[in-house]
Amino acid sequence: MPTIPVQNQSDYNIIIEPGLLRRCGAQIRPLTKAARALIISDSNVAPLYGQTVADSLEAAGFAVSLHVFPAGEERKNIQTVSTMLEACCEAGLSRSDLIVALGGGVCGDLSGFTAAVYLRGIDFVQIPTTLLSQIDSSVGGKTGCDLPAGKNLAGAFHNPRLVLIDPYVLSSLPDRYFRDGLGEAVKYGCIFSEPLFERLERENPKDFLPQLIETCVTLKRDVVERDFMESGERMLLNFGHTLGHAIERHHNYTTVSHGEAVGMGMVAVTRAAEAAGLTPAGTAGRIAGCLEKLGLPVESGLSPARLSALAGLDKKRRGGLIHLVLLKGLGEAFVHPLETDHLTAFIAGGLQ
Amino acid sequence: MPTIPVQNQSDYNIIIEPGLLRRCGAQIRPLTKAARALIISDSNVAPLYGQTVADSLEAAGFAVSLHVFPAGEERKNIQTVSTMLEACCEAGLSRSDLIVALGGGVCGDLSGFTAAVYLRGIDFVQIPTTLLSQIDSSVGGKTGCDLPAGKNLAGAFHNPRLVLIDPYVLSSLPDRYFRDGLGEAVKYGCIFSEPLFERLERENPKDFLPQLIETCVTLKRDVVERDFMESGERMLLNFGHTLGHAIERHHNYTTVSHGEAVGMGMVAVTRAAEAAGLTPAGTAGRIAGCLEKLGLPVESGLSPARLSALAGLDKKRRGGLIHLVLLKGLGEAFVHPLETDHLTAFIAGGLQ
Repeated sequence: MPTIPVQNQSDYNIIIEPGLLRRCGAQIRPLTKAARALIISDSNVAPLYGQTVADSLEAAGFAVSLHVFPAGEERKNIQTVSTMLEACCEAGLSRSDLIVALGGGVCGDLSGFTAAVYLRGIDFVQIPTTLLSQIDSSVGGKTGCDLPAGKNLAGAFHNPRLVLIDPYVLSSLPDRYFRDGLGEAVKYGCIFSEPLFERLERENPKDFLPQLIETCVTLKRDVVERDFMESGERMLLNFGHTLGHAIERHHNYTTVSHGEAVGMGMVAVTRAAEAAGLTPAGTAGRIAGCLEKLGLPVESGLSPARLSALAGLDKKRRGGLIHLVLLKGLGEAFVHPLETDHLTAFIAGGLQ
Repeated sequence: MPTIPVQNQSDYNIIIEPGLLRRCGAQIRPLTKAARALIISDSNVAPLYGQTVADSLEAAGFAVSLHVFPAGEERKNIQTVSTMLEACCEAGLSRSDLIVALGGGVCGDLSGFTAAVYLRGIDFVQIPTTLLSQIDSSVGGKTGCDLPAGKNLAGAFHNPRLVLIDPYVLSSLPDRYFRDGLGEAVKYGCIFSEPLFERLERENPKDFLPQLIETCVTLKRDVVERDFMESGERMLLNFGHTLGHAIERHHNYTTVSHGEAVGMGMVAVTRAAEAAGLTPAGTAGRIAGCLEKLGLPVESGLSPARLSALAGLDKKRRGGLIHLVLLKGLGEAFVHPLETDHLTAFIAGGLQ
């Protein structure tokens, strides 16, 4: 089975294989001396796969508990982390025990953060169940939650012991959530791989799904290995995210999904970069065309002033500067520092 | 001035000097490019020293904000961390900015935890204002908060950039809080240094205060450097703490202070160890005598069954074992693993 090793602060493997879910216990057992495993899952995923994972863990000798939290991006806050920490206490987890995150990005980020801080850090395993979390948030050791002031403003770098990706589970994913992940897949093409971008322009992603996941995970693994603490190259992964987060914030993280917002953000920032002469003309058009072909929206409808104001609290800001990620061309990205005060005018340039 | 360098995951200095508070800005400035500094302090300490520290930081070129939270051990929870994180957002702190923790152990632990998770980690400086925090909690990189199920069950290892200890501030410390710190000072003598223990038996600690602080900080620094992640030797610092935490928990962290509880815990566990033939007879009596001379209580009045039940959730438990720290003699400690089920009988042995 495709196994992608990750080497940074701690080493772990990402395994991609259809049907892996029902064999997860056997994969996890050799890695840990844990007596207890707490599965954390949300109210959408737990009814579908909770029992399968629990059975497999029990068969591998773990004493299993299950904690279910209400599904939804709006639950990605400290209060939910607090209830997860209390669930760890109730399950009697010791320092050598284990959390298993079974769900999408919200579940993985919150469960990973819980594992990072419970008893000042215990092991966790990621079983991502959405395309977005399989190709993005489950890779790279970032965990965390939102604060009232913005997305992902609190968190920790905490690597999983293992990531298990089962492409079969995507068959139960509603179409809109599947497209959500495609937004990030297009991003990988834009910043690292023109061939990937072209394949997404040309083919139906469902026809090469395991390969798509493996390609994206490998691209992200490579950049995370080179820059775990996000001091340089890892920032490139934020392409489309500064404006994307602003768009999500405008909609209170409800009607627009993360991948949709990132797609609109990529188009808007690339149009602006073209107008500023920083990106070759026509690039934004190709990105928009690819997203539309995949069923994703491309226009946020928000004014430059609104986008700029909402982007101001983004944590990529350092001092008075905002670090925008732009394209030299399809498959190659760079960081463009801009004074926060100039952001509105920069975005407006692309919308004229 | 006495400067104690600490080398572990990151390197930093602990500086001990009377009057340091009003020169803190000049000490901090060379270490950071921060534009903003957020002072976090509690409602007892902020009125006494908040302005002094703010003035010194402003003179050193920082844009200063102050966040004050209600004093009290019962505030050491996730909700308080949450308000601190929101204060970071309101102060507009970026990744390169700084938190300054001005207060006792609760303030340092919560502010350090906030610094550990805000934007996945920013710098912080500790200015401990109690004897307990000066000799104990400000050294070693442990940050965190309590959960409903027990003390310090959530947190992170996050080193400060600098620790500034001003013995002058102890003059404003109520006597009972001063004695609270002496409980931990006696502990350092018990586990690492018979000469320190004997000096505390013999002399008035106020007569050698800066030296007492330096000795305790150096002893803790040494063990933390050798065992940052608390996999071995650092556990020795938990002497008196398994039962001490149980005693604090019984009193809901209100009427009995941490140092008092640790004192009672040291006596109770050492009596039990004597009865079990693990510690030389008479040791518990000398510890009790020293604590009493310093004005600290020695009897918890709790039954072995009660102590044992309350100690059960202590995070030093691994699997079905509890790791008690016992003395080979004054100045030398060891870890004694005990099955949790046997704890009541073990404690009872010392009380017969």
